[in-house]
Amino acid sequence: MVAKMNKVRMGMVGGGEGAFIGAVHRHALALDGQIELVCGAFSRDEGNNQRTADALGLDENRAYPSWEALLKAEQALPEDERMQVLIIVTPNHLHVPISIAAVEAGFHVFCEKPAAISLEEASRLKSTLKNSSALYGLAHTYLGYPMVWQAQHMVSGGALGTIRKVYVEYPQGWLSANEESHNKQASWRTDPAQSGGSGCMGDIGTHAFGLVEFVLGQQVTSLCAELQTHVEGRRLDDDGAALIRTEGGASGVLIASQVCAGEENALKIRVYGDKGGIEWQQMEPNSIIYRPLGEPFQVLRAGMGQPGLCDEATDRCRTPGGHPEGYLEAMANLYSYFAKAVKAADADGASHHANALGKAAGVPGIDSGLRGMAFIDAMLASSGSEIKWHDVPSTNE
Amino acid sequence: MVAKMNKVRMGMVGGGEGAFIGAVHRHALALDGQIELVCGAFSRDEGNNQRTADALGLDENRAYPSWEALLKAEQALPEDERMQVLIIVTPNHLHVPISIAAVEAGFHVFCEKPAAISLEEASRLKSTLKNSSALYGLAHTYLGYPMVWQAQHMVSGGALGTIRKVYVEYPQGWLSANEESHNKQASWRTDPAQSGGSGCMGDIGTHAFGLVEFVLGQQVTSLCAELQTHVEGRRLDDDGAALIRTEGGASGVLIASQVCAGEENALKIRVYGDKGGIEWQQMEPNSIIYRPLGEPFQVLRAGMGQPGLCDEATDRCRTPGGHPEGYLEAMANLYSYFAKAVKAADADGASHHANALGKAAGVPGIDSGLRGMAFIDAMLASSGSEIKWHDVPSTNE
Amino acid sequence: MVAKMNKVRMGMVGGGEGAFIGAVHRHALALDGQIELVCGAFSRDEGNNQRTADALGLDENRAYPSWEALLKAEQALPEDERMQVLIIVTPNHLHVPISIAAVEAGFHVFCEKPAAISLEEASRLKSTLKNSSALYGLAHTYLGYPMVWQAQHMVSGGALGTIRKVYVEYPQGWLSANEESHNKQASWRTDPAQSGGSGCMGDIGTHAFGLVEFVLGQQVTSLCAELQTHVEGRRLDDDGAALIRTEGGASGVLIASQVCAGEENALKIRVYGDKGGIEWQQMEPNSIIYRPLGEPFQVLRAGMGQPGLCDEATDRCRTPGGHPEGYLEAMANLYSYFAKAVKAADADGASHHANALGKAAGVPGIDSGLRGMAFIDAMLASSGSEIKWHDVPSTNE
Amino acid sequence: MVAKMNKVRMGMVGGGEGAFIGAVHRHALALDGQIELVCGAFSRDEGNNQRTADALGLDENRAYPSWEALLKAEQALPEDERMQVLIIVTPNHLHVPISIAAVEAGFHVFCEKPAAISLEEASRLKSTLKNSSALYGLAHTYLGYPMVWQAQHMVSGGALGTIRKVYVEYPQGWLSANEESHNKQASWRTDPAQSGGSGCMGDIGTHAFGLVEFVLGQQVTSLCAELQTHVEGRRLDDDGAALIRTEGGASGVLIASQVCAGEENALKIRVYGDKGGIEWQQMEPNSIIYRPLGEPFQVLRAGMGQPGLCDEATDRCRTPGGHPEGYLEAMANLYSYFAKAVKAADADGASHHANALGKAAGVPGIDSGLRGMAFIDAMLASSGSEIKWHDVPSTNE
Repeated sequence: MVAKMNKVRMGMVGGGEGAFIGAVHRHALALDGQIELVCGAFSRDEGNNQRTADALGLDENRAYPSWEALLKAEQALPEDERMQVLIIVTPNHLHVPISIAAVEAGFHVFCEKPAAISLEEASRLKSTLKNSSALYGLAHTYLGYPMVWQAQHMVSGGALGTIRKVYVEYPQGWLSANEESHNKQASWRTDPAQSGGSGCMGDIGTHAFGLVEFVLGQQVTSLCAELQTHVEGRRLDDDGAALIRTEGGASGVLIASQVCAGEENALKIRVYGDKGGIEWQQMEPNSIIYRPLGEPFQVLRAGMGQPGLCDEATDRCRTPGGHPEGYLEAMANLYSYFAKAVKAADADGASHHANALGKAAGVPGIDSGLRGMAFIDAMLASSGSEIKWHDVPSTNE
Repeated sequence: MVAKMNKVRMGMVGGGEGAFIGAVHRHALALDGQIELVCGAFSRDEGNNQRTADALGLDENRAYPSWEALLKAEQALPEDERMQVLIIVTPNHLHVPISIAAVEAGFHVFCEKPAAISLEEASRLKSTLKNSSALYGLAHTYLGYPMVWQAQHMVSGGALGTIRKVYVEYPQGWLSANEESHNKQASWRTDPAQSGGSGCMGDIGTHAFGLVEFVLGQQVTSLCAELQTHVEGRRLDDDGAALIRTEGGASGVLIASQVCAGEENALKIRVYGDKGGIEWQQMEPNSIIYRPLGEPFQVLRAGMGQPGLCDEATDRCRTPGGHPEGYLEAMANLYSYFAKAVKAADADGASHHANALGKAAGVPGIDSGLRGMAFIDAMLASSGSEIKWHDVPSTNE
Repeated sequence: MVAKMNKVRMGMVGGGEGAFIGAVHRHALALDGQIELVCGAFSRDEGNNQRTADALGLDENRAYPSWEALLKAEQALPEDERMQVLIIVTPNHLHVPISIAAVEAGFHVFCEKPAAISLEEASRLKSTLKNSSALYGLAHTYLGYPMVWQAQHMVSGGALGTIRKVYVEYPQGWLSANEESHNKQASWRTDPAQSGGSGCMGDIGTHAFGLVEFVLGQQVTSLCAELQTHVEGRRLDDDGAALIRTEGGASGVLIASQVCAGEENALKIRVYGDKGGIEWQQMEPNSIIYRPLGEPFQVLRAGMGQPGLCDEATDRCRTPGGHPEGYLEAMANLYSYFAKAVKAADADGASHHANALGKAAGVPGIDSGLRGMAFIDAMLASSGSEIKWHDVPSTNE
Repeated sequence: MVAKMNKVRMGMVGGGEGAFIGAVHRHALALDGQIELVCGAFSRDEGNNQRTADALGLDENRAYPSWEALLKAEQALPEDERMQVLIIVTPNHLHVPISIAAVEAGFHVFCEKPAAISLEEASRLKSTLKNSSALYGLAHTYLGYPMVWQAQHMVSGGALGTIRKVYVEYPQGWLSANEESHNKQASWRTDPAQSGGSGCMGDIGTHAFGLVEFVLGQQVTSLCAELQTHVEGRRLDDDGAALIRTEGGASGVLIASQVCAGEENALKIRVYGDKGGIEWQQMEPNSIIYRPLGEPFQVLRAGMGQPGLCDEATDRCRTPGGHPEGYLEAMANLYSYFAKAVKAADADGASHHANALGKAAGVPGIDSGLRGMAFIDAMLASSGSEIKWHDVPSTNE
């Protein structure tokens, strides 16, 4: 006999009315029916907070005025009622303070990226995680796509031979004009105090960078970057590119820009080895173009039961091929794997992951966060320098 | 002050372990966090039924051994606990019997398509609905896509001028080989007793047909069809095509086939008027190609805030452009509109839709079901005949 | 030692200033440097005729006032000077009269399609060819594309197994508005006296039909058609579609329309057998999508030395893959193969092809012309009938 | 009355049997029927030379054993017989020596790119041209595509506003394995003595660079590059990338690689300004994607009479839209414009272009050649340096 499922109970900080990413997280966590949102501190504005909670059908006394109040009150609840995981979808500068407080209060954390606004801050969080039994997941959503796992599988399995080149690009156009023409999304993202030291690189450059390191299974070791701010009055970079080199001897180019007028979220990665190449695009996420050297090229397609897919890809599909899944499903995959790890951890008790930094299988963790911070630091340093190559420090220990 | 949301309570008949479409419905109903699955009769197999219920976290005493038991027990519950909507995802031959029983027991119904296995049966259901206050939704999932609404909007608003041509096609390949190579999906779908008098036309031809009538806002009045069965031993059609004519004077072609080796779900519609044409494909659902006569062609893109979209399309998007939404989101749109109508209806009390046949705004209803039955009948009659044109009877009254 | 190449000498009837297709033929015949245009009767308008000849750099006394004058004068020239091949690019109703006269005058003929304006007329030409040693080529240009030969090769070689379905479509939009808005191209094409009994079917339907029969290597044996005329005052069909059946048991759909607003020349063919499917589009002519059953799909690419191509495809490429060749190259392939056959024939002397009806290897011949006429007749007959299926008569003997 | 056309008489150095690019030039020059190939020195191998001449149908005494012999003999012919233009398709190191000798002998020159193997050498050629009345054309073939002119037109006309970003890439895969697996094409291209100091940058990087400067109408002023050689034993770069900056304040990335396994000739350029962006790809050359800020994106299509095209684009099309033209037509456009300029020049007499360096309208000239050399020098210098930015010297005077 199968035991009745208990949904994993989550709370949310941030994500009030008008906040795009909070709603995205809520769709994603709900999709597979394994997670229940039980509480939140959605907005510093009391009315917004309450309206959001009501619209979500929360218990009226679990809409908290602040994340501090949330942590305190939830700690006081019985174990089988209280929140197990705190989802953080605030502006960037609050990610680490809340993460640390939540971990120290005994909760798992699932955080919108970036993990932090500096490498130092991310390292502090890492130390905190080391000394706790909390799980920590980072919403590098694109790493939830089935075909990104397929790409990783093909590279690690040798289908492309020795990797020589990697090109990654993330052109967007939504910041082509100035912030006044946008909503509050744009304004905090381009405010250094809330967003961290980088605009475009922190916002989307880290996605491109994380995708490279994930698919290649290699760290980027050095880069040569040029960042720019195109729109008058904007205080952070809105555009940049870099030449990159990896520990395994591959080289390539990383492009991230928010002033490519008319582009949506055209994240794309191409990887070439001495035996073949692959290409994947976020806007058509269910295909990988695979070019084996000297043969006609192939198109691998996402879906349950599709030919040529690895288990990691198939496990992330909910439909057979040809009924497209997309971005919300990619994020739902992160939530689904995180929830599975939370269930196992909370069943096991506190000692479950002594040395693993709270990494949930299938979900980017704090190490991805550190990599992102190291990337941003290196990009900023390189862009301001007359020296060509700058190291991206290893974040291994 | 906003009242706290109460989730709409739904139950499910069918959809036990191994049944593809039940899981799809559960993902879709969960996505927007407005609906709660509270009970089910998932399988005639007791173990399967119980395991499914447990995996979903249902109350143990609300996993019923049969749909009859489900209806009886739920009726007996207090109004604010009992199921409001019954979702039907059984084989086709049970759709009407269960729908009628559920309506008569005072529940709303949301049914996987086809609505029925004959026009007569669908008409009986329609009569039942006329005499009730129940809402009835039919899962013509593709009609939940934002860009299908955009297409409908462009046609009805005159962007294409007078419509001359419509081409719709739905090539699949999964029945290219015989049933033994497949799972139970294929076997009941090709069993006349469970599936109705048609295989391919009932399964996917109705999707193509429904898309034509929805986008054009016109009924198909006559057709000339050829159905075939290509795989030895198969008892129903697995392939067919028809010339079609509409009440507004347009003509065109409808293709539906399950033996197009290698094709996934390549549903596509093209419509041409004297001022321009449009094209939409299910497998890249977030774009419409729009060809205004004498101008460069355009591509309209789904997403919140995207230029050129009508409200009906925008309202069905959860993300800005470039983060693809797909099939589950399309079905979630049907559930979302249905849940909204259910809330309004149940708030109003019983007399809310005297003459509207239980139609929920934004959701295909029983009339779509009748159209599908009329289509299948006409296809079968035409295919067996030496006469060229056969009427598709009007199902208006 | 290699003998010095002598270019094949050709003359042209039709193709004066303002005539689209004449210029296309001249580009195509020139491309490979094997053919010389030595004379012409380009226009009944003396000024046009002379200007065309001058612009082409012809000998001043080889611009003839009429095709009759051309044939007579060229016959009188020495064998090593006179035209060997007459190219016919007049309106359709002159194709057969000129072809017969040219053959009887001892010249080879390369004719723009259609071969004739009736099956009877085409049969007369066939009889003439039987009793002569002339070669006859028909400009079914699309059959010059390398990847059309690749498609034919894959079907005939069994890569797709037994063929079940074929879908061919040729949507155009240029006749969406009435003729006054167009040039003389549109006006004669829609004049029954010059164009033959069909507009759209003769103009582009025959291309679609010819492509089906070529790729399948099977004749279409019956069809069920609906033709229409959408633009007021137009005297011939501008649109149509048919269900079709082939001698080998395949079935499918043929669509040809000139009122699909915004479409260019979107000729496309898809073929499915029990082992796989292929797809080819004229507007991206250098790729074939190949879907082997149960495997990831492949894309075969045109070009010298490309993997997976048959000799017939490779032989029709002038560049390695990735430097696109197009429509003019496709027609140049017909000219190139025709010129090769002419050289061989004229070297052999008169008795070279007693029984082969003047067929040049690699070039559609009079039989393709007859098939086209049989197709048009069947389409017209079917469209006007209440009977469902009409035979397309076999044109074999 | 129109004067009879005299074809422009051209000769060719290089391009014997087995040489890819010579055949491409011959197809291209023949396409429009305005040019006659009258002589050649195709190969240092006598047999090859004679066979090539014979296969082309040349006069037997105009197949010369060397380019020196060709120049001498052609000079001695009467003015209305002798070659007017010398086409140079030898390995790179001979381009300048032959160009200078030809110009000094009174002939116009049309040269395969690169113009030279060093900036110094290119400058010498420029000096020679300054003191002569010869026309000089450089086969930057991609600049013959209609839609490249359309892109240039849109940028210069302000459709994109102020240009911010340009991304150009040219991934190829044919040198993924070592030279032994290839024909003689690969071997001389990777021999420094014949190819110049760069492999990939000279071969295809210059194409990407030339495309940027042409479309933007701006010079690239500085760059930061990384070149690499991936295949063991190869003596020149086979891969590289650079960050680039232009005189107008735009920045971007240039990628050129010959080790992108499976890629054909995927040259692509994207340009973004503050009002919109465009994208063009060589492998689908008949479309431009145009993204006006805040509007649905558009696709402009090549062809005579297509909506939205500038005259420069339309003038380079031979067919209406939808009958694809390709690479040979692009090169034919260069030949066609060059031939027109030659006719005008030779009609005018010697003094026709005192200060214009032999530039033929519509055809890249020696200045493009200098730019290419400056680019290669800067790439090599940058790649070997620890300094980030290197100037690309202006080649204006």
